[in-house]
Parts: sequence; structure tokens; C-alpha cells
Amino acid sequence: MDQVRTDLALEENERIQEEKQEETRGVRVEESYMEKEDIRITTVHIDTENAARQLGKPRGTYVTIEASSMSQPDEEGHREVSRQMADILKEMLPRTEEGKELSVLIAGLGNRNVTPDALGPQTVDHLCITRHMLREFGRYAYEDPATPAISSIVPGVMGQTGMETVEIIQGIVENIKPDALIVIDALAARSVRRLGRTIQIADTGISPGSGVGNHRNSITRETIGVPVIAIGIPTVVEAATIVSDSVNNLAQALSQWETMGMLSRSWNALDEAEQRNLIRELLSPQLNNMFVTPKDIDASINAMSFTVAEGLNIAFLGQQS
Amino acid sequence: MDQVRTDLALEENERIQEEKQEETRGVRVEESYMEKEDIRITTVHIDTENAARQLGKPRGTYVTIEASSMSQPDEEGHREVSRQMADILKEMLPRTEEGKELSVLIAGLGNRNVTPDALGPQTVDHLCITRHMLREFGRYAYEDPATPAISSIVPGVMGQTGMETVEIIQGIVENIKPDALIVIDALAARSVRRLGRTIQIADTGISPGSGVGNHRNSITRETIGVPVIAIGIPTVVEAATIVSDSVNNLAQALSQWETMGMLSRSWNALDEAEQRNLIRELLSPQLNNMFVTPKDIDASINAMSFTVAEGLNIAFLGQQS
Amino acid sequence: MDQVRTDLALEENERIQEEKQEETRGVRVEESYMEKEDIRITTVHIDTENAARQLGKPRGTYVTIEASSMSQPDEEGHREVSRQMADILKEMLPRTEEGKELSVLIAGLGNRNVTPDALGPQTVDHLCITRHMLREFGRYAYEDPATPAISSIVPGVMGQTGMETVEIIQGIVENIKPDALIVIDALAARSVRRLGRTIQIADTGISPGSGVGNHRNSITRETIGVPVIAIGIPTVVEAATIVSDSVNNLAQALSQWETMGMLSRSWNALDEAEQRNLIRELLSPQLNNMFVTPKDIDASINAMSFTVAEGLNIAFLGQQS
Amino acid sequence: MDQVRTDLALEENERIQEEKQEETRGVRVEESYMEKEDIRITTVHIDTENAARQLGKPRGTYVTIEASSMSQPDEEGHREVSRQMADILKEMLPRTEEGKELSVLIAGLGNRNVTPDALGPQTVDHLCITRHMLREFGRYAYEDPATPAISSIVPGVMGQTGMETVEIIQGIVENIKPDALIVIDALAARSVRRLGRTIQIADTGISPGSGVGNHRNSITRETIGVPVIAIGIPTVVEAATIVSDSVNNLAQALSQWETMGMLSRSWNALDEAEQRNLIRELLSPQLNNMFVTPKDIDASINAMSFTVAEGLNIAFLGQQS
Repeated sequence: MDQVRTDLALEENERIQEEKQEETRGVRVEESYMEKEDIRITTVHIDTENAARQLGKPRGTYVTIEASSMSQPDEEGHREVSRQMADILKEMLPRTEEGKELSVLIAGLGNRNVTPDALGPQTVDHLCITRHMLREFGRYAYEDPATPAISSIVPGVMGQTGMETVEIIQGIVENIKPDALIVIDALAARSVRRLGRTIQIADTGISPGSGVGNHRNSITRETIGVPVIAIGIPTVVEAATIVSDSVNNLAQALSQWETMGMLSRSWNALDEAEQRNLIRELLSPQLNNMFVTPKDIDASINAMSFTVAEGLNIAFLGQQS
Repeated sequence: MDQVRTDLALEENERIQEEKQEETRGVRVEESYMEKEDIRITTVHIDTENAARQLGKPRGTYVTIEASSMSQPDEEGHREVSRQMADILKEMLPRTEEGKELSVLIAGLGNRNVTPDALGPQTVDHLCITRHMLREFGRYAYEDPATPAISSIVPGVMGQTGMETVEIIQGIVENIKPDALIVIDALAARSVRRLGRTIQIADTGISPGSGVGNHRNSITRETIGVPVIAIGIPTVVEAATIVSDSVNNLAQALSQWETMGMLSRSWNALDEAEQRNLIRELLSPQLNNMFVTPKDIDASINAMSFTVAEGLNIAFLGQQS
Repeated sequence: MDQVRTDLALEENERIQEEKQEETRGVRVEESYMEKEDIRITTVHIDTENAARQLGKPRGTYVTIEASSMSQPDEEGHREVSRQMADILKEMLPRTEEGKELSVLIAGLGNRNVTPDALGPQTVDHLCITRHMLREFGRYAYEDPATPAISSIVPGVMGQTGMETVEIIQGIVENIKPDALIVIDALAARSVRRLGRTIQIADTGISPGSGVGNHRNSITRETIGVPVIAIGIPTVVEAATIVSDSVNNLAQALSQWETMGMLSRSWNALDEAEQRNLIRELLSPQLNNMFVTPKDIDASINAMSFTVAEGLNIAFLGQQS
Repeated sequence: MDQVRTDLALEENERIQEEKQEETRGVRVEESYMEKEDIRITTVHIDTENAARQLGKPRGTYVTIEASSMSQPDEEGHREVSRQMADILKEMLPRTEEGKELSVLIAGLGNRNVTPDALGPQTVDHLCITRHMLREFGRYAYEDPATPAISSIVPGVMGQTGMETVEIIQGIVENIKPDALIVIDALAARSVRRLGRTIQIADTGISPGSGVGNHRNSITRETIGVPVIAIGIPTVVEAATIVSDSVNNLAQALSQWETMGMLSRSWNALDEAEQRNLIRELLSPQLNNMFVTPKDIDASINAMSFTVAEGLNIAFLGQQS
């Protein structure tokens, strides 16, 4: 159903496969599983424009790390997730010329005052920032002469700033000219099971309508002028999704009952337009501005922000925060 | 359906009336409406133990103020709500002997780090606290010699403190012996329409299972030893409620279609137990730990905390904060 | 003494006058006093490059509002300060062509996590932001068709971002092209008496070395490309200033005692170089990274941020926040 | 000079020794130094009432950990400090009967909104809290059957609550009856060199006038009814101390110059009462409400709160946070 929204390419691909009962052309999926650490890494490559249209996500590579340990206070488990994240990031980051240090701007998107949207700002709080030290003391600022120049910004959300996030970031990027931009954002998932235990890393940047705060403009290589890596963590499910899923479950249940002779004309006998109209009636317009979030969201956001920051710190400085 | 939960006596009474198609015995309802300000005040008196059982709320008086202006940046509208709130509070507060100042402890319940649960702590931030001044300077501390001694506490939630909220408050009340306790808490409502535009003031204290943070112990005159007034504002709807409502709507829709010959055996033909089983299947256990909240919850909590604090400041000091 | 630092043109001018025992050439001072409200407004015009060098502040106009009510919970007193502030701002803001709305970017400088440096970020939290509404709904967004387009940014400090504040603001200004920039910042004063009761509004922008966070680059019309109005509030005194003042007081006391025959060779008999060396010995280098701040700084910052935000909201929207 | 205040027994003892040029009777000092880690541990035992009067601190044991690494981002260094702290705590905690778990309440004193006073509240944010789990699931809640029941409270400061801190804690302790109370507080030191690199652990509880927020009532075994361990970290120096020290330095410098014939009657020739009067003139009364704090206080408080919390978590759970 078109109302169902997910920012995870993985979930969108699952949904389409389920609907069509076949693999989507133009999409390649690789999966690996680390049994001991219970970490699953799934890479979804969207290779063609046609596939991109179907999934509603731009062409590119989307890597998802899933680990149940993320939501548990298991420090070693978190560190392994951070290490995996660092490896994936290093793969995606642009190479610089020999002898030239890499320069990266990291933007923590979202609203610091709304718990499930605070992931980006909180992650930035834990980053090791180096650009100002390198500019002041040069290569001697750090032991490793290849230490990248890391800068960061928490741009805020449009209701606070009156500006689109992309307007703020464009200006800063034009002025300080980093080699790459990394944006960190809280995402909407389709399944509550994925909340607080999934990280998506994509080389595509951010598209309109994505994120908890619903960005209205692209933050991509096209709009920003440098490669954009998006790190996202699902922290909410749209309220409409929950209802829609439940109604679909009910429809399935009803159709099974029918086979037992209980219903002469089932939900499935309604054509698709009829089904949609029915569900639209059930989704009150008020639900469009609502999201569903776990009750322990504060502890979860806090833990995840450390894990993501450590992944970035390892990728750039080869060490933990 | 029994899964549906609301902390508002008003909503619970509405639900039962709807189900039974008659007024509940032992419950008296008074309503007044201020047209110009669009403020509706509903008083629900639960007079008998029998009615208390039916509504799942203790005997007592529950006053609900509803005003659309609460969610809008209309300062004069907010002030009128605060004034009405002050009048209701003054009515509920105990009288003190002639010449003895009133002493009130105000507790801001909830988790400051979870936006929809932060209403209590944020309200306390805006209160005028007087007890320490009165103890240091006596009656001369304030122009009005009848100024009450106001103290406040933000006890935190059990996951942070390892203690039940009632354990913390009991100890403090025994030690400082106020004439009354006021607890401020974020509530769960049944209808998303009531979020951010409703205040409930009850002379019953707080019951197990109420509030966004789900208190497990009563905070009432019986457990605390002094009258307890509970001020609550609905900021979330339980995720299970949303789904349950939608499924009920679907059931109704299906039953209407049936009359048009589309379904031979309808939802309504299922007996109640069958209906419940079906719905329970749809409510995944994960939803029990989820809540639904508006996307602009931070601005809403901020505005409401000022309105409630001003209501308390007017009630005690006869002025705005 | 050259170690003594103040960001207030008023104080710097006082100091030089005292030293020289005459008015400074190229500096004009106007003063007005509102007796009922106990508000003093002092305007210092630095007219020549020579005067600018002497005062260590760029040419331009510096208006200082002093009011004892700022540090007291007197709401009406605060509002009068906001109104005066709004009048001064309107005078300084550029005029736009007939029919074209004014566009202003407001930047809250400083570190949100350091109480005395949080004034800028906290003020921005209370602003009415309009730019995004005007862009979405056009002139019909607000009743008054001349409503200016207000946007805001909290850039953070260099230790957090790795960027100079000016680098961040330059980029944003180039991209969104406002007619003017307003920067709000916590300042260092020379006298503890001025903390929490003074607002300085200057049409000169911000110079290197000013502010609690010590900006290293100018934020001025020259570097930004549009007029820059700086609103500053002294919240700290440098620790070195306190010591230096006390030592000067001691020197004066000693010299008075000398006239009474107690000292045969006084502090004043030391030549200036000897005096300086002595004081430098007393100022341990550690003090250079220390500041002095009142113990109730949090309440003070909170109150001042509302007063300043209301001044801006009145200036732009003709109403209180 | 009597205006000089320090909450560190170590500093007070140093001062008295310096003044008297001999060791103080009734005070025993032990020192150990870990060269590799650059950690110095000094234990001051105040054994007699007479010594307690001289030092202005109650009888008991004060252990001070000093480590330059505390103010540096050296994770291994911090962990070693935490381990040492855990050992000292375990030594001071009361023993429980065989088979009975220890129950400890930890109170984070101070004002969360004033950066240098926020150490206590921030430390509590990082603690592992177990009491509620043990009460719900019994011994099976944790692998180690001897896991202590840890609870915590952030009582706030008197300006926020209208209550003395001791009033709040007394009530809670009476109600939940822990075996010991640990209070964590930010302290005032005499020397800026000790800020952000010193932890004091004392078995004496807290005395009136101590801490950044200046407690007015004792929090001790006598007032609370259970042993009270105080963990304190100096985060400020009183402004009056800085001035007083500088004036003393000046006096010393002047007296040296005198020996070179520059002054015929020196500072030292003034009798003590004359000296005191002179200095009192220099200390403006405004300075009494001021404190001196480092500019990077936020990063320092953040780092120290993790170190102290880890020390507590290791002491109670035998592991890092």
C-alpha cells in the first residue's frame, strides 16, 4: 500500500519481493551473517533507474547492519558493530591524492528536543573533531600524519531555523570545501522490530520525505557538490504504517476464515481500489502527523549515538572515542 | 475492548456510555462552555464504588479543560486556560486554619529525557518556589502575608532511580509535612484529537498503571497521608489503541457493506470472544511497549508546561509566572 | 593595564577617560535615563580610526541598555527593556525597497553546554521564525503583509564544529542572502556590577577576541557581505581582570598610606614597567583560561534570553513572543 | 586568611602547615604515587576534635586522587582512576551480614543547569541502577547473587525545590532504608591547578557551607542515620580566593623588594589586623557571589562524570559502565 513508508532500502525491497513473489530486476542483494556476534550485514545495490523507481529510492548502495546487541547494554557487542560500520564507511569514502589529508564534514540532522529525532545531534556530540587543530598546528597536531580533517554541524530543523537543511549545508560546504559530507539522521522504518537495532549506510545521500523530520529537499552529490554518505537509524514507525499493517493482517485473517466457509465474499475479492478506499477511511488524517516510538527511546538513542560516533571515530582516527 | 487505555475519566465515561447506550449509574457529569474563548470544562463525579469499578478510576472529581488554543501560539488564550485552572485548583485545595499559611509540595513526574513524558519536570522548571524564602525571612519575604509555602521535586522515573515514585514522595512528605501534594504527569489518551489540548485535574491522586511512564503504585491520600491533586495532560496514545480503533472501524465498515450484500457473514456475526481473539492476533506484543505521539511534540510540551505552571502560580500567588 | 579586557565600548571609553582625565577625541557619548523604569541608555559613537584604535573597537555605534530590573523577576520591567531594544534595532536595520519584505538571519553564538556562554543559543530558542512560512504560503502566511523573513542558526563553537563561526555563517549568508545578519553573543565585561543587567547593541558586528568563547575572526559587513548588528550581554568577567583590579586597588591604598608616612617608597614610585612586571608575576598563566561568573548564572541567562528574544520579536513582528 | 575557602582537606592541611611551619597535631597524612600512571593518592586522617576545628572539617578520613590524565582524553588513564576510586570506596562501605545484599542510595547533588555544579546530576545519569530489578526479579535478576541494590536521586537545589537537600534525602532514606548513602558533589578548591584533576572521597559526609551550591545543613551519619560517603570534585575556585591569593603574592613580592631597600616599611610590618583590613577593602562584596571556572568546563565535567560513574559501577558491579 502506498501509505506505508520506510526509509530502509532493505525493507522496501522485501516488500516488493513479497508482493511480486519474485526478485526485483536491477536490484542485487548480498548478505553476510556473523554468528558469534549475531550481526547481519545486508547490502542492497539498486543498479538501474527502473529499480530505483520501483523502490522509491535513488540508485546506489545501501548497507544495513542489524544486531540485537545494539539495544542491550553489551559494550563489546556495540564495539563490534562500530568496527563493522567503520569498514563499510572506509569503503564508501572517496580516496584523496597521495599526501593530501581527507576532509569530511559530518552533519547531525534532526531536532535535539524531540527524543526520537535527536540521534543525529547526539551522535555529533561524541565525535572527535580535528579540522581546527590541523589548521592551527598543521600535521604535527596528531601523531598520525594522515589524520583527516573532521568538522561537524548540527543544522537544526526548519521549524527552528526557517531554512531547509540543504540550504544550510550547501552554504557551509561551498565555503569549507570538504571531500565528502556524511549526514546522520533518524529514520522511519516499516517494522517495529527494526527500531533501535539497525544502521543503514548509503552512498546516495538523503531524498525528499525521508527521516523522522521529513526533509523536503535532496541532500545529495547533485545538490551539495561532493559525495554524500547517509547514516540512518530507524527510531520511529509512522502511525499510519502500524494501522495499515494491522488492517492487512486482518484482511489475511478474514480471507483464511473464508476458506473455512465463514465469509462468502472476502476482502481479497474486493478489487485493489476498493481495498484502498476502505483503508483510507480507517486512517484518520490526524494519524499522518503521528509517529510510533518505543517507551525506552531515550536509553536507546543514547546507546546508538555512542555506537555510531565510535564507528566514525574508528573510521577516521583508527580508535574508539 | 479491554486493551484500550485512557487516563481521562471523561473518555472512559464516554466509552462506557457508548457501549451501553445509557448513562452510567453513580457518575454525574456537568459541562460548561465558554464560547468566546472556545474552552470546554467538563466535571465528572464518580460517586459510588460500583461506578469506580466500571470506569477503572477511583471515586472522586475529575475536571477536564479542553481548549483548541492550547496548541496554538495564542498567549491570551493560554492565560485564560491558566485562570480557569487556578479556579479549579483553589476549589480542590484544603483550607488551612486562619492565620496559618498553606504548604504545598508539587511533584513533576515523568522522564525529562523522553519528550512526551517531560511535561511534569518542565512544568516544575517554571514554578515560583517560596518555601525556602518563607523559612528564611518569615512572613516578610512576600508582600502578601498569606503567601503559601510552595516546594517542588522532580523525582525521576524508576529506571533512573531504582525506586518507585511513591517511595520517594512518601519520604519527602513525611519529612516536610505539606498540607497537600500536587502531582503533574503526562497521560495517555484514547483519542489523538485530545493530545495537546486537554488538562485533567482530579482530587483522586494517581492510580497504578496511569501516566506515560506507567506508575505501579498509587500516589493517593491513602499512601501519602495528605490530599493529592493530580494534574494530567494527555501527550500520547498507546499504539495498541490506534490499531484497535482502526480495526473496530474496519469491522463497522464491513458490517455496513454486508447489508449491501457483500458479505454473507459479517464481523458482527462473530461472537465477542471470536472478535477479541482476532484482534489480539493483530496486536503484536511489540506494540505494547510503543506509544503514538505528534511530530511537533516538543513545541507542544513546551507551551503546555508554561500554561500549567502559570495556572499553579496564579492559584498560589495570584499572578502570572 | 593591557590585560584587562571588556567587550563593552562603554566600559572601554570610561577606562580611557579615567586614565587620561579627558574625553577621548573622535568619541561622542549620549546618555538618557528613564527614571521611573530605572533604565539608562548610553550611545557611544566611535567616529574616527584613531578613536577606534584607542578603544580597540571598530568605528560605529554602540548602544548600551542598563537596567537593574533585568536581574529581577519583574515581568513589566523586562518588557520595557525589550521595547527599548526593539526601537534601537529598528533604527539600525537596513531599509528595504517599498513592497519588499526584509529578510534577516539571526545567529545565536556560543556554547549551549557552558551556562554563561549559552545566551545566544537560548535566545534563538525563543524567537518567532517566519522565513519558511513565507516561502511556503507567501504573503498570506501572516496578517501583516510586511512581516519580515526571519531565519536563525546556532552554529556552535569551534571545539565542537572544527570550523570558525564566521566560516559557517558566511556560507549560509551567501546561500540564503538575507538583508542583514544579527549575532547574539555572551560578552566579557570589566566590572562584575554590569553582569546580567546590561545589553549592548552595535552596528559593527563582532571583532576577533570578543565574546565569552573568544572569536578569532571578524563577523562584520566586510567578511559577511551584509550589515551585521551585534547584540551582546556581559555574563562573565575574565579572572585576570578581577585580580588586576584588586591589585590596582591595593596599589592605590598603599599610595594613600604612604601620604600618611607609612611607606617611604610607594607603588606609584615604581615606574610603569616595574608595576607591570610585578602584576604579571601575580597573574598566573592558569588564570588566562578562567572566567568569573555569578552563582545564579542559570536563572540570569534564562531571564535575559527571554528579554532579548522578546526585543527581537517586537522589532520584527510588533508583538511579544 | 579566613576568606579563603577550600572543600579539600588536603589543601586545608597544606595551608595550615605552611602557616605554622609544622605538622598539625591530630592529623595523619599518607601518600602514595603511581609513577607510570601519574596518579597520586593522599589520605588525610583527621583524628582529634582539636584538629577538626583547626581544619574546619569534621573528623574522619579524606582520600584524594590526583591525576593529570583526568583532564585529558586518555581512556585508559581514566579507567585506572576509576579502579583506584572503586578500591577506596569498597574500603569505606559498610559490611553487610553474610547472605544479605548491600543497599546503597547515591545522590547527585547540585544544579543541572549550572555547568560547574552539574557534576553530581551528570554522574548519576551514567550509573547502573539495580534496586528495582532486584525487587522485581530477586536474586535471579543478575548473574552475581551478591549484586548490591543501587538506587539514586537527583534532589535539585534549594532555589528549585524550596527544600534543603538534607530534608529531601532524610525522607527518602527513612523510607527505603539503604545501608549507606553516597553523595556526589562539585567542590570549591583553593588552587586552580586542582580543578578537573582531583577526586576527594571522604567518610564524613557533607558539612554546611561546602560544595559549589553551598549546602546549609549537614548530610552526615548524624542527620541521615546511615554512613555517608562524600565524593567530591573541585570544579570552581571562589573569586575571593583568587584575589586573596594574588594580594598575598603581591605582599610577598613587596617584602622581597624591601630587602633590596625599595620599601622602608613593608607589608609585613603591618600587623595582621592591618593586613586583613586592607585586603577586605579590596574584596568587593560582589565577589562573594562569584566563582572562577575554566573555559572548557563542559568537556571537563562530562569526562569527570564518566570517570566517577565508572568508579561506582566497578565498586558495585565489578565492571565498567
